[in-house]
Amino acid sequence: MIEVCKKLYKIYRSITGSGVKESLEIIKTYIPIEIKSVESGTKCFDWNIPPEWNIKDAFVIDLNTNKRVIDFNDHNLHLVGYSIPINEIVSFENLVSHLHYIKEQPNAIPYVTSYYNKNWGFCLTYNAFINLDRNASYHVVIDSSFNEKGQLHYGELLIPGKSKEEILLSTYICHPQMVNNELSGPAVLTFLANDIFKNKRYNFYSYRIIFIPETIGSITYLSLNFNRLKKFVVGGFVITCVGDERAWGHIPSRLGNTISDRIARNVLTFNTSNFEQYSWLDRGSDERQFCSPGVDLPISSITRSKYGTYKEYHTSLDNFDLVTERGLNESLEIYLKCIDVFEKNCYPKINVLCEPQLGKRSLYPNISTVDSGKKVRNLMNVISFCDGNNSLLDISEICHLSFSEVYGLYMELLKSDLLISE
Amino acid sequence: MIEVCKKLYKIYRSITGSGVKESLEIIKTYIPIEIKSVESGTKCFDWNIPPEWNIKDAFVIDLNTNKRVIDFNDHNLHLVGYSIPINEIVSFENLVSHLHYIKEQPNAIPYVTSYYNKNWGFCLTYNAFINLDRNASYHVVIDSSFNEKGQLHYGELLIPGKSKEEILLSTYICHPQMVNNELSGPAVLTFLANDIFKNKRYNFYSYRIIFIPETIGSITYLSLNFNRLKKFVVGGFVITCVGDERAWGHIPSRLGNTISDRIARNVLTFNTSNFEQYSWLDRGSDERQFCSPGVDLPISSITRSKYGTYKEYHTSLDNFDLVTERGLNESLEIYLKCIDVFEKNCYPKINVLCEPQLGKRSLYPNISTVDSGKKVRNLMNVISFCDGNNSLLDISEICHLSFSEVYGLYMELLKSDLLISE
Amino acid sequence: MIEVCKKLYKIYRSITGSGVKESLEIIKTYIPIEIKSVESGTKCFDWNIPPEWNIKDAFVIDLNTNKRVIDFNDHNLHLVGYSIPINEIVSFENLVSHLHYIKEQPNAIPYVTSYYNKNWGFCLTYNAFINLDRNASYHVVIDSSFNEKGQLHYGELLIPGKSKEEILLSTYICHPQMVNNELSGPAVLTFLANDIFKNKRYNFYSYRIIFIPETIGSITYLSLNFNRLKKFVVGGFVITCVGDERAWGHIPSRLGNTISDRIARNVLTFNTSNFEQYSWLDRGSDERQFCSPGVDLPISSITRSKYGTYKEYHTSLDNFDLVTERGLNESLEIYLKCIDVFEKNCYPKINVLCEPQLGKRSLYPNISTVDSGKKVRNLMNVISFCDGNNSLLDISEICHLSFSEVYGLYMELLKSDLLISE
Repeated sequence: MIEVCKKLYKIYRSITGSGVKESLEIIKTYIPIEIKSVESGTKCFDWNIPPEWNIKDAFVIDLNTNKRVIDFNDHNLHLVGYSIPINEIVSFENLVSHLHYIKEQPNAIPYVTSYYNKNWGFCLTYNAFINLDRNASYHVVIDSSFNEKGQLHYGELLIPGKSKEEILLSTYICHPQMVNNELSGPAVLTFLANDIFKNKRYNFYSYRIIFIPETIGSITYLSLNFNRLKKFVVGGFVITCVGDERAWGHIPSRLGNTISDRIARNVLTFNTSNFEQYSWLDRGSDERQFCSPGVDLPISSITRSKYGTYKEYHTSLDNFDLVTERGLNESLEIYLKCIDVFEKNCYPKINVLCEPQLGKRSLYPNISTVDSGKKVRNLMNVISFCDGNNSLLDISEICHLSFSEVYGLYMELLKSDLLISE
Repeated sequence: MIEVCKKLYKIYRSITGSGVKESLEIIKTYIPIEIKSVESGTKCFDWNIPPEWNIKDAFVIDLNTNKRVIDFNDHNLHLVGYSIPINEIVSFENLVSHLHYIKEQPNAIPYVTSYYNKNWGFCLTYNAFINLDRNASYHVVIDSSFNEKGQLHYGELLIPGKSKEEILLSTYICHPQMVNNELSGPAVLTFLANDIFKNKRYNFYSYRIIFIPETIGSITYLSLNFNRLKKFVVGGFVITCVGDERAWGHIPSRLGNTISDRIARNVLTFNTSNFEQYSWLDRGSDERQFCSPGVDLPISSITRSKYGTYKEYHTSLDNFDLVTERGLNESLEIYLKCIDVFEKNCYPKINVLCEPQLGKRSLYPNISTVDSGKKVRNLMNVISFCDGNNSLLDISEICHLSFSEVYGLYMELLKSDLLISE
Repeated sequence: MIEVCKKLYKIYRSITGSGVKESLEIIKTYIPIEIKSVESGTKCFDWNIPPEWNIKDAFVIDLNTNKRVIDFNDHNLHLVGYSIPINEIVSFENLVSHLHYIKEQPNAIPYVTSYYNKNWGFCLTYNAFINLDRNASYHVVIDSSFNEKGQLHYGELLIPGKSKEEILLSTYICHPQMVNNELSGPAVLTFLANDIFKNKRYNFYSYRIIFIPETIGSITYLSLNFNRLKKFVVGGFVITCVGDERAWGHIPSRLGNTISDRIARNVLTFNTSNFEQYSWLDRGSDERQFCSPGVDLPISSITRSKYGTYKEYHTSLDNFDLVTERGLNESLEIYLKCIDVFEKNCYPKINVLCEPQLGKRSLYPNISTVDSGKKVRNLMNVISFCDGNNSLLDISEICHLSFSEVYGLYMELLKSDLLISE
């Protein structure tokens, strides 16, 4: 997955533009996504898709030294996203009003955009900023273009299952040159989709995988597919910030207790040593749209160090020092476990009254001692809740056993013909 | 408001008698209440209005010195309320069995009544008690009268609104010469009613303001108006102990979660640094009747230092050392905020799917930086709950924003045509 | 009750066999239970009643010394329950594979059974074990018999009440020579049944008292009486481990909030200084059957030191050093209080609106002082919840008053004609 991140790292992405398409083409070499395009100007609910914005070059030259003091080619974050084109000589004072830096993090280039307000600007480290010559004039060049007849690009893959009901797995692809937020998301989703697609071990639900620009992309996607999504989506996740090893977090849906929320909490509870339970008020990615009033899809989000909570967030320091293969792999595993719960969850019902006799089915130890009672305790606990009203997920919560433990015991009961078949 | 308290301070009040009427006449100089009277003997649910009791003079003379050692004219609390008339020479021993004092508060005259049991008595400070001559005889005079054909008086004002639904605001007017409990209540309610009546800024609900003797007065009022109250009262408060600056408290209704309770808790949460959440078991004023089984009006109570919880309670020390204009003013402000919530609360519903585009409505900052997201966060949070199922009060609680903050944001949405009009 | 325990102590009991019948005959000298028998082989839900097992003698002789080194006559726990017959000379190594001891409790003989797996074995203290001669041969004799045409015995008593609805009181009678678990249960239930039967003070509900072998006995009983139990049982308890003085515990039903659970918690809350609230996951006795999916009788359990939680559990140390007459008596009292709540609980409704006038009914102190309000506070609190929706049990919980206190106040209201008669 680190490889995917590295391939995508230096491609310049924004909410529109050729970089998104180029990135999607790379992902397509792993999984057979369809790359779709929607025209600039298309009305999507309260929004219109903005003109497609592309950038060829951007730099600032100190006219005293004739050297490039800020250069987009050094780091993509140097340019404020969606900057209008400019080619002018400006004073230091004029330049400064277009510069962004973080005094408290003197080595970080901040990430700044101005999508819906015509403006231009550059970002740089505070250390670079204080080295600028206050007496110099500067030649500012931004060779950007806005295409009113352009397009917004996104990628989509449907992996059909036995059921038309869909699990929606979404990530965003609109941030330049940062890794935990965002490249970890596309990398993990690519591998997650690949597992579902190739291994076929999950085949009850249909899986809809989308790679979209954040906010405008999810609004566009919802606008184009609203009725279908409302009809078929029964669960899903926004996959973002899943690359470092420092933390786990869960951002719930707006209503907070959908099946996706419950699965996320269950999997995190039994498979991580600790996780932060965020509130809807801490949201920040496409769940904002998926769970908005009237949309209300059952979408939840599991993250590692969550956007807005780590110091490198939205700066050039969100790089490969932070994100590791191990971090990505752990995230993939957690999401696979969530899929596992979606696929395997059911409402078992025992087919005998009173406890079944486990001994005659070789489910009970041969001799009962002070300790031996404990050995079958988990099985007995699970059985005691197989009343047709509790799902395996419920039983996992009630019995304080991981879903996979409960599922293992459920399979033993199934093999022993102790469950009513549906 | 201190002026109102001072005007009423030395008028002798009890549950019946000319002092109540005299007090209501003073209140009538501020707001146009109607003074109503109900005849002694009238059956009110399980009670009968007692004979009207009036007092001309009451004192105890030490016959050794021929001096008045207890004199009702010095302080009204010296006389046990509803004492029967007496004019006798008694021994010290006999006198003592009719005296009340508080050893632990040697400078306080306690407040004692005997409404429904024929008796007489005097109250005095412990310091005065120990100075009585144990060898003297005493001339005891209580020039009181009981009128079986008398009346119980109360004051009432209806301020009609657009709706026939009523907010009931009640205070009691039956305690002699004490300020936090009781004069702060009538003072704050007088000014609260005056604000509603004069400023007309609250005009959706009708406001029913009553000044009644505690217990027998509320029982009488409920008995006379039961069907109307059950039909129209949608909220309200018992206003008592609202004059000092030492504490805030909330006494809930019997069922604990009426709209009045929720508003009281919300206003106290966001507008005081701290408040005591009492239980129904801590009740003690007319909510006992308003919330009794079968009556169950949605009535709650906000207090400063609550009856029964402060050491000066029901003694002569509950005076102007305790109650301040600032204390009264803060209480008035809190109750005005409660009225504000009643009047402004509604169930807003956003009229677009997904998040609205705030930028094109000048609701979004022009440039997005690491920090700028936080600026519109509150607005976004409020929007995310405008689903038609949450009231502004709900949203205030969910988003941890004061009602007035939420209302301000709601008004911005209304002006931006982002809400479905009802 | 200690006497009952002592009479039963040395009778050898297992899930079947003559010892159970002999034990029931002793209980029958106290209360008129009917002794019932069900044939071996009878199908009971998922189970078959096992062959009746009886034991005449069992010992191990060291052939070097010709002395009995383990003798069933010394302590019944020496023999593994349901051991098959054997009469053989075995080596030390062979013998050891059939021995059970607890190294951590060197003076305790453990309790081991092998009901459904054909096997034999002996139990002994670790101290005795290490004294065995490793070079000796051993003569092992178990003179046991299995009767395929035998019977399982249990005792039953129905004490009819005004209502056909039944309170089910169950204990088990299948453990040899241990006192807290199990003889305390039969002893307390014998005296509890005797009180209900003789004193007739509890006569609304019918009481069904059963003494059954654990697990197979309750499954058998449920199998034979399922429809009747489902129709008539409205509450009840499994009475076990009620003999020591060290602790109190409550094991809830599977669903956790039946009337039996609520009564148990209420009685323990107000009548013990402390109790352990166990979860359904901590269960271990016949509630496993009574509350199994589809059976779901409202059965709960109050214990002293609960099975599995005290170090002497299931060993020879669970003896009369642990169980005391005082411990048994306290348990009897607690269960009688539970019966009391079942019998007396009702939904009182006050027959006046607003507070009733307590004074005219001598329910109010004659003179009101700073303190006197507190005296009628409990009565007023109870009255305030007599709305026909709260039971006395609810009111006890809400007002933090014991059920008997609430009941006393309820009786005062009843005598004062303040309650609506049903």
